[in-house]
Amino acid sequence: MIIDIHGHYTTAPEPLGAWRDEQLAALDGGKPPAVAGPVITDDQIRDSIEANQLRLMDERGIDVQVFSPRASFMAHHAGDFEVSSAWARHCNDLIGRVSELYPGRFVPSAMLPQSSGVDPATVIDELERCVTEHDIVAVNLNPDPSGGHWTSPPLTDEHWFPVYEKLIEHELPVMVHVSTSVNPAFHTTGAHYLNADTTAIMQLLEGDLFSTFSELKMIIPHGGGAAPYHWGRFRGLAMMMDKPQLEDHLLNNVYFDTCVYHQPGIDTLLEVIPHQNIMFASEMIGAVRTEDPTTGHFFDDTVRYIQAADLTDASRQSIFEDTARKIHPRLDRRLKAQNR
Amino acid sequence: MIIDIHGHYTTAPEPLGAWRDEQLAALDGGKPPAVAGPVITDDQIRDSIEANQLRLMDERGIDVQVFSPRASFMAHHAGDFEVSSAWARHCNDLIGRVSELYPGRFVPSAMLPQSSGVDPATVIDELERCVTEHDIVAVNLNPDPSGGHWTSPPLTDEHWFPVYEKLIEHELPVMVHVSTSVNPAFHTTGAHYLNADTTAIMQLLEGDLFSTFSELKMIIPHGGGAAPYHWGRFRGLAMMMDKPQLEDHLLNNVYFDTCVYHQPGIDTLLEVIPHQNIMFASEMIGAVRTEDPTTGHFFDDTVRYIQAADLTDASRQSIFEDTARKIHPRLDRRLKAQNR
Repeated sequence: MIIDIHGHYTTAPEPLGAWRDEQLAALDGGKPPAVAGPVITDDQIRDSIEANQLRLMDERGIDVQVFSPRASFMAHHAGDFEVSSAWARHCNDLIGRVSELYPGRFVPSAMLPQSSGVDPATVIDELERCVTEHDIVAVNLNPDPSGGHWTSPPLTDEHWFPVYEKLIEHELPVMVHVSTSVNPAFHTTGAHYLNADTTAIMQLLEGDLFSTFSELKMIIPHGGGAAPYHWGRFRGLAMMMDKPQLEDHLLNNVYFDTCVYHQPGIDTLLEVIPHQNIMFASEMIGAVRTEDPTTGHFFDDTVRYIQAADLTDASRQSIFEDTARKIHPRLDRRLKAQNR
Repeated sequence: MIIDIHGHYTTAPEPLGAWRDEQLAALDGGKPPAVAGPVITDDQIRDSIEANQLRLMDERGIDVQVFSPRASFMAHHAGDFEVSSAWARHCNDLIGRVSELYPGRFVPSAMLPQSSGVDPATVIDELERCVTEHDIVAVNLNPDPSGGHWTSPPLTDEHWFPVYEKLIEHELPVMVHVSTSVNPAFHTTGAHYLNADTTAIMQLLEGDLFSTFSELKMIIPHGGGAAPYHWGRFRGLAMMMDKPQLEDHLLNNVYFDTCVYHQPGIDTLLEVIPHQNIMFASEMIGAVRTEDPTTGHFFDDTVRYIQAADLTDASRQSIFEDTARKIHPRLDRRLKAQNR
């Protein structure tokens, strides 16, 4: 089985974006949108999924995708906690509906109603609601709800601990994933996303989070940003800081996805990072939606890179399925309940 | 010949740091330091160089190093333009003295007296002074003088154009290099440096700087941050933005150094980036000063990685020497004057 642990609902039906536009316009005095959220039919959802994610999953042989709201639309910098809270609820409910319509293909992961400058503990109500109502299998946590101004403390700070406690309680892994950059220095998907991944790894390296939260499982997307390419640098910095080797210091808790959009990058990831710390992902339909003219295949068709890599069958099985099930116990239980 | 295009005077004699401490303390009402700068003897310089950079260059077979002030000490966020101006002058003069003491081994590159929120055109006096007095061969430009808050416009903005005009006039390539991060989110050498490299590439990709400044040569250090590892992502993003292929859009003007501290990372760089766009560098003595226990060699002994890589003699020659001479015409003239 091929499990894609990183997909976003980038193709959500138009009423979702229209509702958000109204919500943001209301911040400037416009008429607020319906409290009940956007009106979207099941057929609209089916159309948006079947023509896009599901079609590509079928073409590429992906069985299941861990599916979360569009990352760049989380936009935790916009408005206040109430704004984020209503927005997260509607986005998460939509993800829940996708997974109910396609229970064998999509499993829900939640965005959190983070808000710049607001205590992260405020996200717990929505997190628990998503556990209860949607049986989510993971969550996305934004280390920079300011949108590129990086005003939050590092991920190792007590600031974040209430969230980690709840994640562990509910057996949820957390993907560290930023949203839109409103800082003109940072392009959202070309710089901010990758920088956030690199930054997260270095924050974890500097700190000692996993001696406090040994059960926390943290996923660094986009192949870990710059970290695997500079793994020697990170290993050397850990030595200079008198930290344990990275295998002991980080790799009992930190996992990388395979959202690296060319064979040489994937090969580096596979050469440097232990295979049990890598989970298959495509992020499709995401940042890069074009075909690579040098291969004739889509850049984000990451199945091909893993298939073409020099891997043992055991490693490939671990990357495609086994680690995802181990790190997402709620996903594993869902699949087992389906006799998979 | 092996030319290392990226070295910093991280081992400068103690009076330099003491002078800086006094200068910063004066911002809080302390006694200002001597206007003439720190008092440092030639013997102090010799000791600091011969026991460190020069010893390692000899051990590793590096003939010449392009040598600039310690990057993390530039600290353009501290004080105002006058503070940066005095500090840059003394640091650059010290680099000038190193290159006068070892004319065959070190060639000077200047830091600029940037200051957060100040028009970059104010750096031109110091830039031209360094050309006249020290015959510098390159400069370091900090894309984020705020020190991790990223308050400056992108490198493609007119904001920076007066600097680019002077660089071209004086045949100086520019290395894009940040300094200390005062943002707790970003570790200086583990996150901020790499993020800046990735950010710079993406700014250049989004813009069209080199159609305006076709003669500008820009060096992205630390192996280009995350860019080569994610080259497929960048190629795909360029297509989505209707930009030319990266070879045409960027690689007539953008160069990468080899400050990547393990063999798999170097191999990725060499596989992805055309060899004529890569210049040898170690950044020693820099961010990582320890031995890799898996190889028994220093992480920053990047000569070994290039020697071990699967390269033609022509590519190795290009990376070790030829491109550095081509991109740094003032360095080439210096070497030719030495019959090298």
